[in-house]
Amino acid sequence: MEDIKQHIRDIPGFPKEGIVFHDITPLLQNAKAFEAAVDQMADLLKGKEIDYLVGIEARGFIFASALAMKLGCGLVVVRKPGKLPYVTINASYDLEYGSDTLEVHRDAIHEGSKVVIIDDLLATGGTAAATGDLIEQLGGEVLGYCFLVELTALGGDKKLEPHPVWSVVKYSE
Amino acid sequence: MEDIKQHIRDIPGFPKEGIVFHDITPLLQNAKAFEAAVDQMADLLKGKEIDYLVGIEARGFIFASALAMKLGCGLVVVRKPGKLPYVTINASYDLEYGSDTLEVHRDAIHEGSKVVIIDDLLATGGTAAATGDLIEQLGGEVLGYCFLVELTALGGDKKLEPHPVWSVVKYSE
Repeated sequence: MEDIKQHIRDIPGFPKEGIVFHDITPLLQNAKAFEAAVDQMADLLKGKEIDYLVGIEARGFIFASALAMKLGCGLVVVRKPGKLPYVTINASYDLEYGSDTLEVHRDAIHEGSKVVIIDDLLATGGTAAATGDLIEQLGGEVLGYCFLVELTALGGDKKLEPHPVWSVVKYSE
Repeated sequence: MEDIKQHIRDIPGFPKEGIVFHDITPLLQNAKAFEAAVDQMADLLKGKEIDYLVGIEARGFIFASALAMKLGCGLVVVRKPGKLPYVTINASYDLEYGSDTLEVHRDAIHEGSKVVIIDDLLATGGTAAATGDLIEQLGGEVLGYCFLVELTALGGDKKLEPHPVWSVVKYSE
């Protein structure tokens, strides 16, 4: 099985001092490695009946879209404020300094839909939790969250309880 | 063949008075229609030897990623300033008021790579042309540009000459 981690580049000091950024662009650029990563995410979702994958702007779109092709699901986009043209609902979440907001179209999913939320990275889980709130506000059922990379030391999985978290690559520090 | 246009919703007055926004979210949400749209884009690229697809942030990521899965290409992301963690090059382009900038990693492609640039929509072509400049600065060969939707009255294809433009759905006004 393709070792996904070897295609991820660690960049110390981005976006600021003391942080090591896990850069997935070398993975995306390598056709075989990119497809292997998507296949490994798809394996984590095998056997689930999923109506929609939800991609979180912007890198979440990459994996949600690729997985939608693999799994034959619809794709719902959750975006930053002001990008979606139709009637939206929104959810805010705290950042280290200040807060941020995400939006989704009010008619993005139908009541009772089974949904998996997709992003490239699980850190503290604030963005993912806000996305789950939006889906539940619309009457959707969150089956779980699927990430390429999980930073386990930040405890994001706790913030997403009781929903399951699936991830391909884990960093413990 | 699936009629893609029937899954696109016209929203008058977004982002401002006098503009009709072609909202692709209903298309994305419909698994069959989304896959048909990606297949029709893939058909436009059939027989070409492509090393990389380039996705332009943010909606371009959706189609570039899905097409990368279909065609077995690497994916290069072109992003808004400050998002890419490694060494970047950038290109600016004019908007109606002011200007905007796009960035790509300096090592995103290797010299002589054959590249197709992907976005959801071709309007005036400023964003796409700036992306083409970035790829050529890196020594890549732009085989052409592929869009889901083209607004033909805005003449974006002229701005991208001499490169070919391929699109699935055209609006003439």
